[in-house]
Amino acid sequence: MLPERNFSNLLAARWRDADSLLCVGLDPDPQRFAPSLRNRKDAILRFCCAIADATAPYACAFKPQIAYFAAQRAEDQLEDLMAHLRARHPDIPVVLDAKRGDIGSTAEQYAREAFERYGADAVTLSPFMGHDTIEPFLAYAGRAAFLLCRTSNPGGNDLQMLDVGGEHLFERLARLAADAWHRPGQIGLVVGATFPRELARVRELAPSLPLLVPGVGAQGGDIPATVRAGCDIDGFGLLINSSRAILYASSGDDYADAAAQAARQTRDEINRSRGDRRDNR
Amino acid sequence: MLPERNFSNLLAARWRDADSLLCVGLDPDPQRFAPSLRNRKDAILRFCCAIADATAPYACAFKPQIAYFAAQRAEDQLEDLMAHLRARHPDIPVVLDAKRGDIGSTAEQYAREAFERYGADAVTLSPFMGHDTIEPFLAYAGRAAFLLCRTSNPGGNDLQMLDVGGEHLFERLARLAADAWHRPGQIGLVVGATFPRELARVRELAPSLPLLVPGVGAQGGDIPATVRAGCDIDGFGLLINSSRAILYASSGDDYADAAAQAARQTRDEINRSRGDRRDNR
Repeated sequence: MLPERNFSNLLAARWRDADSLLCVGLDPDPQRFAPSLRNRKDAILRFCCAIADATAPYACAFKPQIAYFAAQRAEDQLEDLMAHLRARHPDIPVVLDAKRGDIGSTAEQYAREAFERYGADAVTLSPFMGHDTIEPFLAYAGRAAFLLCRTSNPGGNDLQMLDVGGEHLFERLARLAADAWHRPGQIGLVVGATFPRELARVRELAPSLPLLVPGVGAQGGDIPATVRAGCDIDGFGLLINSSRAILYASSGDDYADAAAQAARQTRDEINRSRGDRRDNR
Repeated sequence: MLPERNFSNLLAARWRDADSLLCVGLDPDPQRFAPSLRNRKDAILRFCCAIADATAPYACAFKPQIAYFAAQRAEDQLEDLMAHLRARHPDIPVVLDAKRGDIGSTAEQYAREAFERYGADAVTLSPFMGHDTIEPFLAYAGRAAFLLCRTSNPGGNDLQMLDVGGEHLFERLARLAADAWHRPGQIGLVVGATFPRELARVRELAPSLPLLVPGVGAQGGDIPATVRAGCDIDGFGLLINSSRAILYASSGDDYADAAAQAARQTRDEINRSRGDRRDNR
């Protein structure tokens, strides 16, 4: 039995209670850690917990990126981090960024990894193999899946911008997620911040889906344009992710304080851009 | 420094020396293990090593599926399995089936996981995010990446069969892999066995790429049709994967012997279908 959590409810409550659309990405790179953490066996766990505790007041969600743990043989530290987040910050939903995608029987194993082993509230997935590769994740009531839709890396154009009968592939995906593949509260999309026009198009096609938006901060996405393009009609609907600009705001032992300051500034910048909509609530 | 191995050379030699196009998939499901393995802490490792040792004479490659290890908190057993395969079967290339796909900095972490941590010779990848998400893997000289192209699950049609300007998306991918994204000896494609006509089309578009073909055995793909459609001009070019039909050929403690027999039969069935081409070598 999984503990009773509901990603969609947690997120909606957190957007309002923390007045934040900021998602804090946890991409721990030991080469960038402060001196006091170097050579500690549990450096990754300590770093991530300190960042999470410091930035929690400004976060609507946390997003650990599993590749950074896997490359360091640190799955045990990811388990401990997830337990820490649930215990200390039970009202903040956690999206495990894993971008899995495989056929049914294998997808069941990945779903077990994300939801049972790590206790994530949501997971990122690649939609390349189609609807049945998403379903084993949606079988977990209350958990959610964010499907890759439009990514902001240079090669994002290679497939996502192909014309598939009068619309781009990413538009088709947004329509599928909002319609044929939709399950209330269980589906979101990943849309990069660097193409606000396309973000606006996704919002148009999927008016009520939560959009996970990487690419602000170190990757250069523009916050006001992202907010204008991506917020839903109530001024919510976004998880605007920042990782490196927060995690490595200082390379010294004041990294957690610096992260808190960077997170607060980013949240505030997002909220200034939301200004009008927040006033109208 | 990684040990000097070259996937493409290993595979070409193994195709010839073992006279086999059979790839043995290692998808360990503890619920299906024989009685003697139950409740052993190292059951996954023991099972996979026993299967590998028994089927090695008939295998051109091994393909561990990482999800089965991750769901069981068994990354350490996967590390030990990979070390066992390199030590005992150094002439058999190992494809880590992980279907990763992420932007550059994160892809570097996944590449480190696959090639440095696990020492895989090749890895499966999702191409959804484009060429730059493949490159960090190709930066490892001698290692290879198999890109998802046409998958045989029901939802495989959802994206892969979309018309992208006069051809299907999977055809576009095959052309990209054979041309714009190509690196000699480092790129292959994953094409399911259940659509021989599409497999033939991929072979036409990518005459010299190795094709990893899941879907025979438990998934019902037809071996003669697969061989006819997918072999290259020399009668090689395929890694025809079978997992469950070999791994669980017996549910008793004779599972390794039963796996060897199933592997030999599958290899022989493949070779009978190759008959004419093998005679012409």
